[in-house]
Amino acid sequence: MKIAVLGYGTIGKSVCEYASHSSLIEIKYILRRPGKAYGALMTENYEEILADREVEVVVDALSGREDSLRFMSEALKAKKHVVSANKAALASGFRELIGLARENRVSLRFEASSGGTIPVVSEISSLIRTNTIFSVYGIMNGTSNYIIDRMLKDGLDFGTVLLKAKSLGYAETDPEADICGFDVKNKLIILASLAFQGFVTREFPVFGIDKLTKKTLDYFASLGKSIKLLGISLRKGDNYALGVVPCVIDGDCLEAHVPLNYNIITVTGDMCQDLKFYGQGAGGRPTADAIMRDVLSLKDFSPEDNAGTFKNNLKYDPDLIKGIAYIGTQKYDGSLQNLFDKAKEKGEFMAFERRDI
Amino acid sequence: MKIAVLGYGTIGKSVCEYASHSSLIEIKYILRRPGKAYGALMTENYEEILADREVEVVVDALSGREDSLRFMSEALKAKKHVVSANKAALASGFRELIGLARENRVSLRFEASSGGTIPVVSEISSLIRTNTIFSVYGIMNGTSNYIIDRMLKDGLDFGTVLLKAKSLGYAETDPEADICGFDVKNKLIILASLAFQGFVTREFPVFGIDKLTKKTLDYFASLGKSIKLLGISLRKGDNYALGVVPCVIDGDCLEAHVPLNYNIITVTGDMCQDLKFYGQGAGGRPTADAIMRDVLSLKDFSPEDNAGTFKNNLKYDPDLIKGIAYIGTQKYDGSLQNLFDKAKEKGEFMAFERRDI
Repeated sequence: MKIAVLGYGTIGKSVCEYASHSSLIEIKYILRRPGKAYGALMTENYEEILADREVEVVVDALSGREDSLRFMSEALKAKKHVVSANKAALASGFRELIGLARENRVSLRFEASSGGTIPVVSEISSLIRTNTIFSVYGIMNGTSNYIIDRMLKDGLDFGTVLLKAKSLGYAETDPEADICGFDVKNKLIILASLAFQGFVTREFPVFGIDKLTKKTLDYFASLGKSIKLLGISLRKGDNYALGVVPCVIDGDCLEAHVPLNYNIITVTGDMCQDLKFYGQGAGGRPTADAIMRDVLSLKDFSPEDNAGTFKNNLKYDPDLIKGIAYIGTQKYDGSLQNLFDKAKEKGEFMAFERRDI
Repeated sequence: MKIAVLGYGTIGKSVCEYASHSSLIEIKYILRRPGKAYGALMTENYEEILADREVEVVVDALSGREDSLRFMSEALKAKKHVVSANKAALASGFRELIGLARENRVSLRFEASSGGTIPVVSEISSLIRTNTIFSVYGIMNGTSNYIIDRMLKDGLDFGTVLLKAKSLGYAETDPEADICGFDVKNKLIILASLAFQGFVTREFPVFGIDKLTKKTLDYFASLGKSIKLLGISLRKGDNYALGVVPCVIDGDCLEAHVPLNYNIITVTGDMCQDLKFYGQGAGGRPTADAIMRDVLSLKDFSPEDNAGTFKNNLKYDPDLIKGIAYIGTQKYDGSLQNLFDKAKEKGEFMAFERRDI
């Protein structure tokens, strides 16, 4: 199978390295920015890739949103399968991209976009064949989990651990997307849309760990509890709610023991009950592995696979997720949406304890 | 797709219940023991099922080994796909059954045999396309995990919890396969063969929890550790080792926090690194769900999928798994095989702490 890879950062390089050992996948092009293309496979001309009928799959390993969205749309219109790791682009244009894939009878795959190498996208895709999925939630951001883990175990404050995370390559130079919850937001939009089989809103409570203090962590630790940044999605019938929020987790839950930059994602269905998937949510090799599994699984694709998915007209009901919020020294009870509004108004850290499950 | 279901116990009934709501799957026969068949779908005549060309898939929901092995072989020879939940039958005839599936260009699927609804079989099948898998290990038996969990949390002794487990339906009337490790042994044979892509031996150390005392559990709890019955498989190049043994687990490992009758299975590959899969390892609905996903995934089957799997000539090296054993009041160091021999000789409980990872 001949593929084109868009981008040559950490993920793009790992994909190219993997493909060089594969007898099943051949890279025909690597798209790079103007002035960056060198060697036989690299090009700056996307039109050339689109026009080449030998290229069956376009692998999107870009980080920017706008370019990626445009490249994916054009590839689908050119009747090429698209495999993408770009959660920001996917989350913002999910409905349109899925529509284009259907229209052009090709596949859009995105295992690497949510949970890195964790096969949660392929498993949700399989589970919806036999299950009604009620909930997808979990630790979906490695950087913030790393920061909380080291704050707790090394007794360091937020700023010190963030610097350490940056020096180890666990946090970006601009870590806002990771620590303010926007990265989890994008993943949650993708996973909830897939699991609930309809398109979800982009507007819902998103809270990060940027105001988390060692004192707060220690307080909950003294009660045998942890704080973890969770993405939460919940569905009742065709109603659903979403949220990204630091949550209070009991010490005997698996989530409390997820170390470093690992992720864990729980999917709950009527038949399968609780399933949890744990692994590396980022990194060159694990992400490239998820991309390669997507590419190789395309051999089983038939255009009928696109039908039926995203068939539900879902209604956003912000009051579905309920619990208790610890804001400053106060405790409040209510829906996540109301508690979120209160914390924003006060400008203080919020830790949320679910009461809807 | 028209299917035949062999057996009408907990799993068979759940499969039939599920299929009655499905537009994609139609049950044409339910095979029952002589004298037990009633109603339109039930038959005691397997020849009738084999001869019916409309039946594409035979679902094996039997518990006995010999009948199941014979029925599976005959179905494969009649060029029908087989989906089986019967780990004992699969583990004992794995090489022959895989050979028959290849020869007859049909599929043998067995998600429900190992880890119930946990999609570890389908994920290993996908991961081996892009990974060399080094290790599969985990908590693979719900009954023994339930017993250990309740002994620890309720402060009860082994016998009392076993009686409770039987009354709740978590343990069989004859619980030997569960508590002595034979159930884990069968699952490990299936998962290791698949992950290491070759057939493994049936002879390796298998130790259970039947001699576990509350005193031993409490001793390790006082050190912040747990005891869990693990199936372990390890591979280095073409060498491998297997074992089933109660293991000492650090309190900050996820395995230490797996409650009740849940399972967790870890797969480690060169690209994906550590992946963990958690869920209900047994029960009617979860097991039926795994069977149904297997049946529905058959639409993507092509006979070429059978090629290449189980291609490795593996060599059993019992010394690969190493660690420390706590036997009675003594501590010993060595390979699992040697420590196992020592514990058997002494007739005492062994707790094993891995040192090879």
